[in-house]
Amino acid sequence: MKLDRLEKVIRNMRDMKLTQLLISAPASIYYLTGKWISPGERMLALRVSDSGECQLFANKLFALSPMDGIELIEYSDTEQPIDFLSEKTESGLMGVDKDWPCRFALPLSEKRSDVRLVIGSPAVDRARMLKTKEEIDLMRESSLMNDKAIGRAISAVQAGVTEHDIASAYNSAAKEFGAEGESFDSLICFGPNCAEPHHATDATLLKEGDSVILDVGAKMNGYCSDMTRTVFFGKATDEQKKVYDLVERANRAGREAVKPGVPLKDVDRAARRVIEEAGYGKYFIHRTGHGIGLEVHEFPDVSESSEAVCEPGMIFSVEPGIYLPGKFGVRVEDLVCVTEDGCETFNQFSKEMREIEC
Amino acid sequence: MKLDRLEKVIRNMRDMKLTQLLISAPASIYYLTGKWISPGERMLALRVSDSGECQLFANKLFALSPMDGIELIEYSDTEQPIDFLSEKTESGLMGVDKDWPCRFALPLSEKRSDVRLVIGSPAVDRARMLKTKEEIDLMRESSLMNDKAIGRAISAVQAGVTEHDIASAYNSAAKEFGAEGESFDSLICFGPNCAEPHHATDATLLKEGDSVILDVGAKMNGYCSDMTRTVFFGKATDEQKKVYDLVERANRAGREAVKPGVPLKDVDRAARRVIEEAGYGKYFIHRTGHGIGLEVHEFPDVSESSEAVCEPGMIFSVEPGIYLPGKFGVRVEDLVCVTEDGCETFNQFSKEMREIEC
Repeated sequence: MKLDRLEKVIRNMRDMKLTQLLISAPASIYYLTGKWISPGERMLALRVSDSGECQLFANKLFALSPMDGIELIEYSDTEQPIDFLSEKTESGLMGVDKDWPCRFALPLSEKRSDVRLVIGSPAVDRARMLKTKEEIDLMRESSLMNDKAIGRAISAVQAGVTEHDIASAYNSAAKEFGAEGESFDSLICFGPNCAEPHHATDATLLKEGDSVILDVGAKMNGYCSDMTRTVFFGKATDEQKKVYDLVERANRAGREAVKPGVPLKDVDRAARRVIEEAGYGKYFIHRTGHGIGLEVHEFPDVSESSEAVCEPGMIFSVEPGIYLPGKFGVRVEDLVCVTEDGCETFNQFSKEMREIEC
Repeated sequence: MKLDRLEKVIRNMRDMKLTQLLISAPASIYYLTGKWISPGERMLALRVSDSGECQLFANKLFALSPMDGIELIEYSDTEQPIDFLSEKTESGLMGVDKDWPCRFALPLSEKRSDVRLVIGSPAVDRARMLKTKEEIDLMRESSLMNDKAIGRAISAVQAGVTEHDIASAYNSAAKEFGAEGESFDSLICFGPNCAEPHHATDATLLKEGDSVILDVGAKMNGYCSDMTRTVFFGKATDEQKKVYDLVERANRAGREAVKPGVPLKDVDRAARRVIEEAGYGKYFIHRTGHGIGLEVHEFPDVSESSEAVCEPGMIFSVEPGIYLPGKFGVRVEDLVCVTEDGCETFNQFSKEMREIEC
């Protein structure tokens, strides 16, 4: 058990008036215990009480070794893990993870009408949100690997390739530069596919005049990277140039707004304003960014509805975009880390507009 | 909307006394609508009423096109999807997906104290469990691709390779033979790693005397394959030979037990008995198998606690194993499809014991 991290979580539990918290996200369990367990459909949960008592409920199959400060409660495939959990649960409020599935939550509620489940994940999410110096170093390293790998992927953009090919080029490069695996499935989009911001990479063939979005990231030493660059295959049209320039400026404006004390909704606003003022507001259809760390999407959002405020040690993406349905799209994304007086941009890869010769 | 499939689901809802059902698993939504949407952390849910009324709640970001027979209810990142859902929800019982996360289920319960959430996924899971002829053909094809790809991976087992290398060999072969992507991360285990049945493929180097488990699968035309073979690098010891023979016989006994009307727990029993009678029962630490289709793990389990009974059109894995901690492990897995009078084994790749020359 990582005691300094547990202490942070317990402090947050007290602020939330929670005396018990059930943590089920594998990344949060890893954050506290240093063990990454992928439970599949089986129940894995770490119960933490505000006195510091911890129980880990895990299937025997995972054959966990004992951990300091944690009571290990194992069950087999023929036993009901909820029975074991119910026995240790105290009356009253219990915080549970936002992702905890109904197949566990509903039977527990059924069994224990004296327990009221509430979302408790902010207690861990807010601890994970503030990275330590060691974590910041690992995140920076992961982004530098990503910078190198995207360069390789962009060199692969040439006549005859498909989106899948560019994704493969990225994946091999990331692995070569030290990644353990992807943070997420690389999103490679050509031409009109770019206007669907969550298009899945497919066998679309590159065509002259296409915008090419590369939204890529990988894990290194357990920490995620995530960045986006957009290039053009052939000469960009005037509209493409104008849209690219706007998105690049929105990215810069977002990053320039970041410093301790600034609400994240103001970071969103700063990026969004650039695009809105040019009349493209309705084509920027998503939030400006998201927290990142052990997972690619972490608390908090960088959006109009975010209530979080920049604090040193927070790491998030700034990724404005403009998507013109049926035509093309542009997104430019960097990861930034809030410092004492502003922010550090992790991604160093150029954001100058680039037209690749056909 | 695929009306024949919707009808099956509604029939199951009636058996379960459910007038409304909320379906959130992307594979189940794909099963009913033909659209695969990966919502990430955003809410995606298809509400079905027993009168056949359907609403799909989706983020605007996914820019869905209209679908026959479905009212599309879109929300933006700054709106609360639960508000929209709550408005359409009727009083009384509502079935929800077993995997529906608490971050949606708890706010809905909070807002609508007149609604009681229960697990409703069996209504869809039991429909998905019984594959149509068309689905069976696609599953067979996916397994034949897997047979070819595992052959390529086994040829790569030679001095100097790591588990990662074998996984890469499998992935390239699967892609070459028509796979769209993995069904799951290939599990390649060398030597003592084999005795941890959910070991994650890593950089372990192959050594003489190692057992090599290859548990691999990929998706083709949307349908998953999944198989396991175990080979030995160098001469197998007498114990390795004995264990291999037992597991191979357990696999056969499991498959031979399959026919309409037989409870799945008897299939588990048939495989397990072979291993128990030889005194290795405590080293077979998992269920015998699992349903498979659009997803790699589907309803039902093939385990001692399964209450399902074989019906024509069911497809599941038979995958007994013996794991000797610190030494080696063996697992042999095939997919079978229940026929009118027995079963068809999809995987044709040889299960003869194989010692690869060092």
